[in-house]
Amino acid sequence: MTKPVKKSVKKPAPRKAAPRKAADKAAKPARLLPAAKPRLLERLRARDAEIRRLMHISSVLSWDQDTYMPSKAVGERSEQLELLSGLIHDRQSSPELGQMLKEAGASDRRPLGPDDAAPVERAYLRELFRAYRRSTRLPRRLVTELAKQAAVGRAHWAEARKASDFGLFAPQLAVILNLVRETTKCLGYKEHPYDPLLDEYEPWMKTSELDKVFAGLRVKLRGLVERIVASGRRPDTSFLKAPYPVDRQREFSLTVLREIGYDFQRGRLDESAHPFTATLGCADVRLTTRYNPEFFNTGVFGTIHEAGHGLYELGIGAELADTILADGTSMGIHESQSRMWENFIGRSLPFWVYFYPRLKALFPHPLEAVRLEDFHRAVNAVQPSLIRVEADEVTYNLHILVRFELEKRLIAGDLQVGELPGAWNAQYQEALGVQPPDDSQGVLQDIHWSMGSFGYFPTYALGNLYAAQFYRTMKRDLPGMEEELVRGEFAPLLSWLRDKVHRLGRLVPAAELCRQVTGESLDPSCLAEYLESKYSGIYEL
Amino acid sequence: MTKPVKKSVKKPAPRKAAPRKAADKAAKPARLLPAAKPRLLERLRARDAEIRRLMHISSVLSWDQDTYMPSKAVGERSEQLELLSGLIHDRQSSPELGQMLKEAGASDRRPLGPDDAAPVERAYLRELFRAYRRSTRLPRRLVTELAKQAAVGRAHWAEARKASDFGLFAPQLAVILNLVRETTKCLGYKEHPYDPLLDEYEPWMKTSELDKVFAGLRVKLRGLVERIVASGRRPDTSFLKAPYPVDRQREFSLTVLREIGYDFQRGRLDESAHPFTATLGCADVRLTTRYNPEFFNTGVFGTIHEAGHGLYELGIGAELADTILADGTSMGIHESQSRMWENFIGRSLPFWVYFYPRLKALFPHPLEAVRLEDFHRAVNAVQPSLIRVEADEVTYNLHILVRFELEKRLIAGDLQVGELPGAWNAQYQEALGVQPPDDSQGVLQDIHWSMGSFGYFPTYALGNLYAAQFYRTMKRDLPGMEEELVRGEFAPLLSWLRDKVHRLGRLVPAAELCRQVTGESLDPSCLAEYLESKYSGIYEL
Repeated sequence: MTKPVKKSVKKPAPRKAAPRKAADKAAKPARLLPAAKPRLLERLRARDAEIRRLMHISSVLSWDQDTYMPSKAVGERSEQLELLSGLIHDRQSSPELGQMLKEAGASDRRPLGPDDAAPVERAYLRELFRAYRRSTRLPRRLVTELAKQAAVGRAHWAEARKASDFGLFAPQLAVILNLVRETTKCLGYKEHPYDPLLDEYEPWMKTSELDKVFAGLRVKLRGLVERIVASGRRPDTSFLKAPYPVDRQREFSLTVLREIGYDFQRGRLDESAHPFTATLGCADVRLTTRYNPEFFNTGVFGTIHEAGHGLYELGIGAELADTILADGTSMGIHESQSRMWENFIGRSLPFWVYFYPRLKALFPHPLEAVRLEDFHRAVNAVQPSLIRVEADEVTYNLHILVRFELEKRLIAGDLQVGELPGAWNAQYQEALGVQPPDDSQGVLQDIHWSMGSFGYFPTYALGNLYAAQFYRTMKRDLPGMEEELVRGEFAPLLSWLRDKVHRLGRLVPAAELCRQVTGESLDPSCLAEYLESKYSGIYEL
Repeated sequence: MTKPVKKSVKKPAPRKAAPRKAADKAAKPARLLPAAKPRLLERLRARDAEIRRLMHISSVLSWDQDTYMPSKAVGERSEQLELLSGLIHDRQSSPELGQMLKEAGASDRRPLGPDDAAPVERAYLRELFRAYRRSTRLPRRLVTELAKQAAVGRAHWAEARKASDFGLFAPQLAVILNLVRETTKCLGYKEHPYDPLLDEYEPWMKTSELDKVFAGLRVKLRGLVERIVASGRRPDTSFLKAPYPVDRQREFSLTVLREIGYDFQRGRLDESAHPFTATLGCADVRLTTRYNPEFFNTGVFGTIHEAGHGLYELGIGAELADTILADGTSMGIHESQSRMWENFIGRSLPFWVYFYPRLKALFPHPLEAVRLEDFHRAVNAVQPSLIRVEADEVTYNLHILVRFELEKRLIAGDLQVGELPGAWNAQYQEALGVQPPDDSQGVLQDIHWSMGSFGYFPTYALGNLYAAQFYRTMKRDLPGMEEELVRGEFAPLLSWLRDKVHRLGRLVPAAELCRQVTGESLDPSCLAEYLESKYSGIYEL
């Protein structure tokens, strides 16, 4: 999980690993802008840079709130964030900016294809226009109120989760949900009130399209889960639920981050109740994780997941720095990077061929007698369960589909906050055949709604879909990849991701990026095939 | 040492310990403001509150820079701080604010005495007026440039200090000094260009007054140091320069903070290259310290010093929250609180009667055979030395006087940056009879100049003077204080400080506060007598 990092922007230092191609065009003179307005782009960039800076400042405050802030500061911090959100909104919706965008002929037209003229300027104007249009549709009061209530919401959620009592969170969630529903009305929609929320995280995506994509996915996943359960095979996972001292987990997490190429001069790893990645500046992209002293998976795979987000943010082309383009192009693509690292790479056998000896040296007690193959099988064990962030690759998407359905109904007004725990438990029974014993293991497990982030969850499943398509292409492009992983050589893989995805920032929208990288449109069958193949091997189906 | 906490403001939760008196008048209706403008105060307060919030936001960024920020983020962080300083400056110097202050008849008139009418409003208008006047005199460009260069300066200083090479810092210091000198010209002065800088930290104080006060102090201190050296007595301090594992020092520091009444729900203790106190919100006042694994004094006394600042900030009357009055009244008074806790209390025998058994339990190896009396004598050993923050109470002020002389000459243009290391070493030879072996133990030891804080150093000595006067009064008011300290009862002492000093915030200027609390004006002989008495005992003079 990551907080909506798309609200912040990042500037990486120049990279050796990835050659620069398309993004280098950013340096060329404007071709779309009217010749009579030579300084227009410059003026737009100055305004844009100030907005980016205010967003980064806001990220510093949010990061601090979730890591080190003293408990009684929450009220003031929410006022500080409210003030900043107002300053940002004023700038994003200023009539002068609107006038400049009009003069520049900005619109939200998506790229036509590889021959599209002046793609960098067009993308720049397109993203500025979209942000401007969105801001002018939202009253300042609503924006600042939501920022404030979300800061309070996070604190109430954390308390309620600790006490495992949804009742402690429900009143504040109702306040937030009302504000979010008001937001959908202000933003407007043609088909579904969920569309404008989704659009914030996954631009141009529609609820109806997701419904279709997820319907096919649901059938295939359930089939695979059934066959796995029916196989009767149950990998031994007892050694994962054993004492793993936190300081050693921390040491191992830091080792993995260093080895895969995360730059500690431009980032950090801290701990928080809910892992996230925060962009406090283009050269300041921080990760958090959480360690469970009695369960291995939580800490290390959480760290690797966030590292995927962090590497994306840090890999964005330096020439896009301090612009609206210096950001992940969608949360689906963002999650494709985190899920790629966490699962496609981090739960692969070659990855553990390299790291397992070191892990064993750190944790001789639970792992001494555990063979590599059994460890690999254990971290890939499929088991319908309660907690999304600890779910295996196969059932994970079913957790997302539950949330997607509940969110749609909450936003449409078909489900009330008070009915949420019951609906949650019923959906879990239906989708996964499990019943949360309490709220903290059920409806209170995720931070998202407390922050007003509705429309975010489906991007995790989209991320898995995109990741599968990217991964298949990457393996074709890098035939020696598995051997390199076995030797701990992550640079070729990271270079490929940087070149194909990271450096482009928001230049190319998600759907186009998928076609550009893989030659194909979004296609759920690719993930289904990947899972089918991987788990047929592990479960000998 | 503390960073200019006066740039931020703090709001404490209601306190049981200290009864409210004068400050309660803040709740009463305005008596000074024109009856025709009933909402004027309200409008002023709304503007003031926004400025406070921006200052707190700025403090979050500075705190983070000095504790956890990744190294390569410094450039962006300086741009973020520059942006915030501009937003603050715009608001502090806005013509609308000026018009409101004019309508309210604001001026910088100091209180007349106890019968002064409407002291709260008068103080409020006075402080707003002073901030407005100062801001309008400074061009925006100068303010933002100084904020930016100071952020860079801190990074250069840290590198130079690490490398012990003043040359690495000199160019940036020259940039900062030029900006500071430009500041003095913009602010204006009648007597000395150092006056307007001093006025920022110690309102209404003049260089000429300090010259007089310090001249008398210098003579007395030198006399005392000479007699101590001549006594031939050298307390054994070898056990203080021994291995003190950092994790245990941290544990002890936290214990002391908890016991003396620092509230961890409204603060934290972290580590930084240079200890400081930062006010990130009225309910968020954080301390930092640094631990030397081979020397006891650095960590614990540094922590206690910063706690003195933190307790002051957290003790300001709740009714002053979010106003310009919710701040220490001067840095001299601020330092009186930190030096009071560090030395008058923290280096007293009763304090260690209470804490020494626990310290011994944590550090059996260096302290096992050391008697309480010998420990107390050792932490009070007088020895002319190189490092200000590790200096004893007697020689400490001589370190300050060196800096005060050098600062005056730098600001007046009588000393160039390139000449600074030589001048520093010469002054140390003359004042303390010691020669720094390298820059890190000499001219590079303090962070202040790197941040553009000229005029701050003398407030440490003023703090010692005020602390001595407050301490004498407190001992009269609390005759059982020493017995309470022996039992670890810090509440009566803290209540006294809150009632007499903390809760008043900036209501009462430093000189008036001194008279109000002690019945006397600033008087260096009180510190001299305290030192004379304490060290005559320890050194059997």
